[in-house]
Amino acid sequence: MRWTMPPDRVPEAWFNVVPRLAQPIEPALHPGTRQPAGPQDLAPLFPMALILQEVSTDPWIDIPGPVLDILRLWRPTPLIRARRLEQALDTPARIYYKDESVSPAGSHKPNTAVPQAYYNREEGIKRIATETGAGQWGSALAFSCALFGLKCKVYMVRASYQQKPYRRLMMETWGGEVVASPVDQPDSPGSLGMAISDAVRDAGSREDTHYSLGSVLNHVLLHQTVIGLEAKEQLQLAGEEKPDLVIGCCGGGSNLGGLALPFVPDEGVELLAVEPTSCATLTTGKFEYDFGDTAGLTPLLSMYTLGHDFVPPSIHAGGLRYHGDAPIISNLVHTGRMRASAYNQTAVFEAAIQWARTQGTIPAPETAHAIKATIDAALQAREEGKEKVILFGYSGHGLLDLQAYDDFLTGKLAGS
Amino acid sequence: MRWTMPPDRVPEAWFNVVPRLAQPIEPALHPGTRQPAGPQDLAPLFPMALILQEVSTDPWIDIPGPVLDILRLWRPTPLIRARRLEQALDTPARIYYKDESVSPAGSHKPNTAVPQAYYNREEGIKRIATETGAGQWGSALAFSCALFGLKCKVYMVRASYQQKPYRRLMMETWGGEVVASPVDQPDSPGSLGMAISDAVRDAGSREDTHYSLGSVLNHVLLHQTVIGLEAKEQLQLAGEEKPDLVIGCCGGGSNLGGLALPFVPDEGVELLAVEPTSCATLTTGKFEYDFGDTAGLTPLLSMYTLGHDFVPPSIHAGGLRYHGDAPIISNLVHTGRMRASAYNQTAVFEAAIQWARTQGTIPAPETAHAIKATIDAALQAREEGKEKVILFGYSGHGLLDLQAYDDFLTGKLAGS
Repeated sequence: MRWTMPPDRVPEAWFNVVPRLAQPIEPALHPGTRQPAGPQDLAPLFPMALILQEVSTDPWIDIPGPVLDILRLWRPTPLIRARRLEQALDTPARIYYKDESVSPAGSHKPNTAVPQAYYNREEGIKRIATETGAGQWGSALAFSCALFGLKCKVYMVRASYQQKPYRRLMMETWGGEVVASPVDQPDSPGSLGMAISDAVRDAGSREDTHYSLGSVLNHVLLHQTVIGLEAKEQLQLAGEEKPDLVIGCCGGGSNLGGLALPFVPDEGVELLAVEPTSCATLTTGKFEYDFGDTAGLTPLLSMYTLGHDFVPPSIHAGGLRYHGDAPIISNLVHTGRMRASAYNQTAVFEAAIQWARTQGTIPAPETAHAIKATIDAALQAREEGKEKVILFGYSGHGLLDLQAYDDFLTGKLAGS
Repeated sequence: MRWTMPPDRVPEAWFNVVPRLAQPIEPALHPGTRQPAGPQDLAPLFPMALILQEVSTDPWIDIPGPVLDILRLWRPTPLIRARRLEQALDTPARIYYKDESVSPAGSHKPNTAVPQAYYNREEGIKRIATETGAGQWGSALAFSCALFGLKCKVYMVRASYQQKPYRRLMMETWGGEVVASPVDQPDSPGSLGMAISDAVRDAGSREDTHYSLGSVLNHVLLHQTVIGLEAKEQLQLAGEEKPDLVIGCCGGGSNLGGLALPFVPDEGVELLAVEPTSCATLTTGKFEYDFGDTAGLTPLLSMYTLGHDFVPPSIHAGGLRYHGDAPIISNLVHTGRMRASAYNQTAVFEAAIQWARTQGTIPAPETAHAIKATIDAALQAREEGKEKVILFGYSGHGLLDLQAYDDFLTGKLAGS
């Protein structure tokens, strides 16, 4: 069963969780002085509108009309009840998922790529540089730049550049320019931290160019809150007062934050972050200030981190391979408002196959982490005989990740 | 702008155009006797429910509840107004498209794969054999068999099997078994006609197995009419009395038929089939009885055909490479109710890129034929200063066809 809404029900303001946090969020620090970074420190990289959103304590921030016009190409996204999975699990839980895979780029990422491209164009910027790991973020930004007439340069982690030609072709179809990163070490497989350094260097060296980040920062999570705001309204349409449990996979935190943040003030709604055991930032990392990139060019953020020089093992859920986590997500976990759990790759793909053969769609490996946690929660509800309402984020489709499924089905997948 | 409808508005009956045709449709002939084929002739291949639908003259046929339950996983599909394309073309035309790419398999094909799997299971069949060219049909049937607990064997044209590993992996993710065809000529690149022969032989040789066809036949086009029925209702929601022009790409005819057939009785609605110049069945073929496959195992159908031994050149729109056409579509073209036009591959990909960079989504190469014809019609409306309402079928996404885009962008595409 699907709950759809007409396009005029796309939220017209973003939900800012910052003024609603139990403990205030620590400010970002300048990488040189280690003093709180001011707007002028960030101005070479970001348009002022985004810098102001990054530090805003307004409870709601209006979404500009030209951004809404583009979001309405695919929003509101459907909320779907996974009845066939419920039946297969014989659970009294009611399982709903918010389907962000229907966007042109195939994930939630365009929710922030569109406003970022818009604000940059409004400030006269002609070109945006960014990094991409698995390719989801680069695809979303290339798509958004095409629609606003901006040039887009994507530094793609070399391992992905070589293993995922389809993601690169997708960006090029939208007119993006894609190069393998690190650009100065052609033998290195690269990492997200290294690619961020490449993109920041590019943006810092050109007047016409800004930098754009697809996760972690406050303004990115802010833009993603359309997901949770829509889901809240759609759950009402489905006859549910509230979810008991909200689940999202977590790499940098933008997918999880987008779905979960609007539920932060709601009593009795449990929030769960799911990460891979091979890059278990929230469950095994330290809560401290760290750089966002490998080279130490970015401001220092207060977050859970495995260390900015941590290189996670190569897993198929490339979007979850990040050494840090969004300060907002880290704050929620640190203060106990959100729980976190980790799963290994084999368990995650078993869940993905079960999903594909019951619900019919093929999820991204990242999304499959949330599916695995959902299945576990639904089975626990069966044990306890409880009618639990579970909402999880279906962050993206796995159509460009089919090689990962082949590796799993033919026994070539590493377990961790 | 998108027009969505709640899941309870999925049509509950299929629209049968056969009793509404200006001239009756000629019966299929037995390949041996060349006499009209009776139900018992088809029983080794198809369940009786589908055979009866194949020859039915009932104006409406009820959709079974278990089929509706699965169609509702993604239906009703959205009707979307392509405003950004309209603006780019500076046309007074209003362009709408019906988006079938949102299905789990990424095209309109599951609309018939689901009922075909259902009726086979109801008759006690345990296994279905079929062919696939580009892989869209095989994916849809593997998906549908997974949901009904049937085994699925797919004979995939060898050229596609080798060039499109992602499509094969998609079928395997749903549990399908895929082999390259022709099975007895390992050096042949294969063709759709050869793969049909392989699948028909398989089904004919096993008691537990039936055959399934993804296009051409009357019952297949019947199942696809949910597309046009929904679109009609959604156009009303959008404030349009009727479309002036309905456009669909045409290989075997199921996508085009699904969208266009419900408009056949409507005066003032022009219908247009779009095909590739390299396999221009409707625009250059003969209207006569011919076999559906290469080996001459299938019944003879009254249709436009290039000859059952015609091997079309290899183009990226693999779903349009078929020597014949649906008898219903052929009848409509022959009697003048529907027009046909043909475009070459380069013009089609130019249109696809224009679409991707204005509307934001990446269409299947087949779908891009309809987009090209839509752009031409919208430009003609500008010339004539006419407010035309154009509806076209967005039959599938191009996410597993990105190699074709690369070939086009790097100048490696053959022109025809």
